[in-house]
Amino acid sequence: MKKTNNIDQQEAQVFLLEGKFGLEKENLRVTKEGKIACSPHPEDFGDKLKHPYVTVDFSESQLEMITPPLPSIAEAAGFMKTIHEVVNENIGEEILWPSSMPPALPTEDGEVPMANFGELGKDHEDYRSHLAHTYGRKKQLISGIHFNVSPDPLLIQHLYQKSGELNSADFEQELYLKALRIMMKNRWMPLMLTGNSPVVHTSFDMSNWELPEIGQDTRTHRFTHSIRASISGYRNKEEFYLDYSNWDNFKKSVDSLVSEKKILQEKELYLPFRIKKDTSGKITHMEIRLLDLDPLSPQGINEAALYLYHLYFLWALLSDEKDSAFNRQDQRVAYYNQYKVACCGAHADIWEDRKPEEGFSKKEKVLNWLEELATLIPAHESYEVYRKALQYFKSLANNPKKGPTEVVRKGVHEKGYIAYHMELAEKFKAEGLAKGYRFSGLEDMELSTQLMLREAIRRGVKFEILDRAANFVQFSKGDKTEFVQQATKTSLDTYSGVLMMENKIVTKHVLHQAEIQVPMGADFDHPDKAKASFMQFEGKAIVIKPKTTNFGLGISILKENTSKKLFHEAVEMAFREDNSILIEPFIAGREFRIFIIGEEVVGILHRVPANVKGDGSSTIRELVEKKNQDPLRGVGYRTPLEKIKLEAPERMFLETQGLNFDSIPADGETVYLRENSNISTGGDSLDFTDDIHPSYKKIAVEAAKALGVKITGLDMMIQEIDQPATADNYSIIEMNFNPAIHIHCHPFRGKNRRLNAKMMDILGF
Amino acid sequence: MKKTNNIDQQEAQVFLLEGKFGLEKENLRVTKEGKIACSPHPEDFGDKLKHPYVTVDFSESQLEMITPPLPSIAEAAGFMKTIHEVVNENIGEEILWPSSMPPALPTEDGEVPMANFGELGKDHEDYRSHLAHTYGRKKQLISGIHFNVSPDPLLIQHLYQKSGELNSADFEQELYLKALRIMMKNRWMPLMLTGNSPVVHTSFDMSNWELPEIGQDTRTHRFTHSIRASISGYRNKEEFYLDYSNWDNFKKSVDSLVSEKKILQEKELYLPFRIKKDTSGKITHMEIRLLDLDPLSPQGINEAALYLYHLYFLWALLSDEKDSAFNRQDQRVAYYNQYKVACCGAHADIWEDRKPEEGFSKKEKVLNWLEELATLIPAHESYEVYRKALQYFKSLANNPKKGPTEVVRKGVHEKGYIAYHMELAEKFKAEGLAKGYRFSGLEDMELSTQLMLREAIRRGVKFEILDRAANFVQFSKGDKTEFVQQATKTSLDTYSGVLMMENKIVTKHVLHQAEIQVPMGADFDHPDKAKASFMQFEGKAIVIKPKTTNFGLGISILKENTSKKLFHEAVEMAFREDNSILIEPFIAGREFRIFIIGEEVVGILHRVPANVKGDGSSTIRELVEKKNQDPLRGVGYRTPLEKIKLEAPERMFLETQGLNFDSIPADGETVYLRENSNISTGGDSLDFTDDIHPSYKKIAVEAAKALGVKITGLDMMIQEIDQPATADNYSIIEMNFNPAIHIHCHPFRGKNRRLNAKMMDILGF
Repeated sequence: MKKTNNIDQQEAQVFLLEGKFGLEKENLRVTKEGKIACSPHPEDFGDKLKHPYVTVDFSESQLEMITPPLPSIAEAAGFMKTIHEVVNENIGEEILWPSSMPPALPTEDGEVPMANFGELGKDHEDYRSHLAHTYGRKKQLISGIHFNVSPDPLLIQHLYQKSGELNSADFEQELYLKALRIMMKNRWMPLMLTGNSPVVHTSFDMSNWELPEIGQDTRTHRFTHSIRASISGYRNKEEFYLDYSNWDNFKKSVDSLVSEKKILQEKELYLPFRIKKDTSGKITHMEIRLLDLDPLSPQGINEAALYLYHLYFLWALLSDEKDSAFNRQDQRVAYYNQYKVACCGAHADIWEDRKPEEGFSKKEKVLNWLEELATLIPAHESYEVYRKALQYFKSLANNPKKGPTEVVRKGVHEKGYIAYHMELAEKFKAEGLAKGYRFSGLEDMELSTQLMLREAIRRGVKFEILDRAANFVQFSKGDKTEFVQQATKTSLDTYSGVLMMENKIVTKHVLHQAEIQVPMGADFDHPDKAKASFMQFEGKAIVIKPKTTNFGLGISILKENTSKKLFHEAVEMAFREDNSILIEPFIAGREFRIFIIGEEVVGILHRVPANVKGDGSSTIRELVEKKNQDPLRGVGYRTPLEKIKLEAPERMFLETQGLNFDSIPADGETVYLRENSNISTGGDSLDFTDDIHPSYKKIAVEAAKALGVKITGLDMMIQEIDQPATADNYSIIEMNFNPAIHIHCHPFRGKNRRLNAKMMDILGF
Repeated sequence: MKKTNNIDQQEAQVFLLEGKFGLEKENLRVTKEGKIACSPHPEDFGDKLKHPYVTVDFSESQLEMITPPLPSIAEAAGFMKTIHEVVNENIGEEILWPSSMPPALPTEDGEVPMANFGELGKDHEDYRSHLAHTYGRKKQLISGIHFNVSPDPLLIQHLYQKSGELNSADFEQELYLKALRIMMKNRWMPLMLTGNSPVVHTSFDMSNWELPEIGQDTRTHRFTHSIRASISGYRNKEEFYLDYSNWDNFKKSVDSLVSEKKILQEKELYLPFRIKKDTSGKITHMEIRLLDLDPLSPQGINEAALYLYHLYFLWALLSDEKDSAFNRQDQRVAYYNQYKVACCGAHADIWEDRKPEEGFSKKEKVLNWLEELATLIPAHESYEVYRKALQYFKSLANNPKKGPTEVVRKGVHEKGYIAYHMELAEKFKAEGLAKGYRFSGLEDMELSTQLMLREAIRRGVKFEILDRAANFVQFSKGDKTEFVQQATKTSLDTYSGVLMMENKIVTKHVLHQAEIQVPMGADFDHPDKAKASFMQFEGKAIVIKPKTTNFGLGISILKENTSKKLFHEAVEMAFREDNSILIEPFIAGREFRIFIIGEEVVGILHRVPANVKGDGSSTIRELVEKKNQDPLRGVGYRTPLEKIKLEAPERMFLETQGLNFDSIPADGETVYLRENSNISTGGDSLDFTDDIHPSYKKIAVEAAKALGVKITGLDMMIQEIDQPATADNYSIIEMNFNPAIHIHCHPFRGKNRRLNAKMMDILGF
């Protein structure tokens, strides 16, 4: 096999590694005891026939998780990770089994629950009955990952133009078929690097491969590599030999398997690679099926393996063949090599060129091949992940003992098959749940949007990110489509409603008309006018403040019985800071963010400045370090809370209290490290949804109605949260037209109020 | 009468001249021949019982135009001017008679058409029948202006606090009553300065005042001052004497006139000043009724007189009285003085202190009084208009021969009563119609908003300007309320719809999905990537351009058959101007703004650069000067078009054509003075609403539907406006969420498409 010249390296670099990438992954649900779960598919996911992301495979307990085609492998893996997390959130105490080979199975094959698709899913069930009958139910529980790759159309077009062929459709078919031949032929190489199912439970039928038992519940041999890809794995009952000579012949040879009833449908042909077409027969992508679940990764995917297989496919697309035959003998050798590698990994005997050649070095062959793959990677830094993946596999080829199969084998040996896998799976589940605010691969988007996308996954709502930087998403399900920006900017609100919220003068005016309390003050641009207004404000508690101010300079809060003289002094003080001042009624109390969706208060939050609570022995520095370990805290506003800093502002604020970072607060004493309560400077968000007197909630809903808005985050000053509202013990400061939802879902203290779910409800999904 | 000390000058200056000001003005409709119009009240104004701004008074031909209470006299006068213009727009060829005294009247009193209020207006009609019976129909046609003034509540509060009184309501009543006494007693002084009805048509009944005839159709004497305020004017059949001693007695004496059936209702008591109350009996304002229509002003209002009467009222509020009696003898003297001044103006004999005093100088008295008024005006520059008004009246007191009554008398003498007034009125009407884009007093607001407010006046929709700088208006009629910002930001559009328009990526995406043509190009941040995209664009006409550019640098338009080499050169050229470039399909043709309301295309506009058309003899400079005389052209974006400048950019652009400002273009030759077509640099707006092939209108409506928006200004490139749309002869560039409406109402060439009316239609008013 030699490197081809059918590509212009300079020109191709911009599209060579571009394309669309999708993943489909099977995963068994198991009980806390590590037995296959007999519970039905979780109701939360709705109709499994229509759900685009989460459905079931052969068994009711075997989830199938599907990503849409995405523009990078990182995004596809992130999407799968997020589906994984969302599934974990909705299966209660059940666990996702982390390995391709199943957990403890019931004695009788018939005890494996088959998928239930109800009335409408009759065809699905018939096909599954056929599979159960042909292969046995237990065999169907072997789980894998299908990796779908379609290259950038520019690559196909480029190759077509270089080829001089006259029919582009024909060219594409033959190109894919050539790639398939090369991939089929050489598959032992990637399998040797990525095989990942070295152990199996003793309850699994291994009658055609007598693997030794280790410990109480495991079978494995010291080189066992991929039981799933082995003769005991997931495969057709016999090896089918196809005619790969050209597209038409290939198609005919597949069709004849069906007409001869060797398989029921084309999809029952379990080739490790399949060329997939759309309903019109046009090729859409290459399906790569040789990947085992990675029991060592939280979402069961070895990302490096995805990069390797992507390069493998490109290499096959771009390579020339010595001859285009991939005859029966070639196919037999390829099967032989696959099973050998599955059985023994790096220790397999490999046939090369239709015979076991003397002097042939597998390792050299694999390393040379990895070098060839490396030449395909353009220099651009965004492809660094590909180079790193090849590095990893190069070291693995040089030192197979360091591979994941060895890690798993060792772990199982120490702890037992079930215990080892359950320990891994439970840890992964807990870690994922703790970061339930994020959408992996889309972490650059706003948390509120990431939460909406997670909820879309749960409900099976398709989404397309129209403008990632702007957090603009198109959601659709069935006939319904909604365009949503930043989670809360929707079609439910009117343009004028939003403009009313945006304009404080108008907000106040309309709320005042509706007899809702607002700080109806006055603004002045001349001290004399402001002073003359004493008459207006006499006898009321007021705030006098410059229109803009830093550090609270020039602000006075005057009590009810303030004298004219004091009033005048406060006016002068404010004018020393700005040319324009505000005089407003003063409402004592705390500020609460009240979130309204429709006519319902769905969350109430209060923010407090960065703080630690003493234990009588730790320093402030230690208490901060401990508090910062919360997975909700991060840096750079990509988490619901921000880590508390120990920098100049915190030091200065502690100094005003006679404290420093090494002071030791008393047990139970709360020490504040900042004056401002912003979350962005380490403040805490406290959920008060159930703690506020209902009268304030009623007012908040009335306020939303007065402006005719459906979604708003209303900032209200409340004097006493357990006392009913009166004409002067609360005041609405502001109504926000783009309130964050994540702070109500992942507060420092309090419940997840699931505002993403409530948003999806009101949007009608 | 001496100046009082019951006010703190320093403190009071901020509110002394503040308050609310409203105007009610009667105006007869006349035919082009100067006869009272017999046509019904214009249908366009809708229900005259409910219209807040335009209704009828006694006669069906006697319009009553009403402003709401407004925060300044300038705004009230501007509002009235605008009502005036809107009325003129809706009475066809009829003319608003400019004088208080009526035009030619029919011989029989019964021929004067009485107001028709239909079934629901029975009470109104009964009252008018009573008036017709008591005073005669012709007498009721005398028209005047009522000026309503309420001071800033702070002034009343300030005076109350200074007074030491215990009951603020009682205090206010007695304060107003004192002001009324003083105003009633001294009314000859303002009347002497403001009287403005010196001539009357011979058809009017002047049986109680034998005025000499001049010319063919006029009666006047050389000093005649205010026939309306005279014994032949609009007054009760007898002088009623009231008890002014205190509020209760005053009220009783008025009530007894009604109970004695001397008048039918309190409102039939035609005092020159009336204290007005709301339905709860609380005083709302002082009504000043002594103002004649000003035949020399376009809207019949002498603004200086409004400032004078405002000061007169304040002076009365703040003055001390020698004694509080205003007994029958005092009232008789006041009537006497009024009639004398009405009859003879500055030549009247005035009784002072209940008798004609010797050595009494009217002029000195009036000048002293004007000096006293002047002391009330705070130094702030915003009150300069008050100082100017007093200056004017001072010069008038010194030289009554220069007054408006002399101007009118002279004009009528020369041209005849009817001809003179009609000439004035027609000129005013034409001038007003030419500036139909503006709302006087609110010229700082956007033209689109001014047009909406004008339409609100026509339809009787009340409005409140919530945030003037933001052009935020609350419209209401009956139960319906709408909040509108900048004329087109309404509740009809959704938040997400607007955000979709605002985001070009999203707009293009959604239109593309709907199979509408948009420039679906690509952006590149690296030359190699851009060059590699040649494949994508090969065979298509394209534009390659830097993402941002000045003066069009770096832009290439490439034809269908461009070579790869040329493509690469164009890419490099664009990258020399910016780090990021765009490659888009090129659509030839012209750009049109298509305005959609609901599902209707309501206006299509094309803009061309500043230009003049030669006549074969004028220079470019002269042609520009002539073109700039169009009342649609102004400076500073407060008119639908901007004056063409003759400055450096125009000079330079002419130079590129080998021309200068003194070149003489050939007859019919168009010379452009700018390259850009912005209206702000003197460009022309050309209406194409009826000239574009309907297929483009259909596409525009579909585009609006695709985004789910109701109001949008869509920018479309069209190759041939008379050819139907195909897949590649048009392209939608942009959809604007806040399109200006005024450019479609007052284009340089074409019809007024009345988008303000269409906006009001779709808003449901």
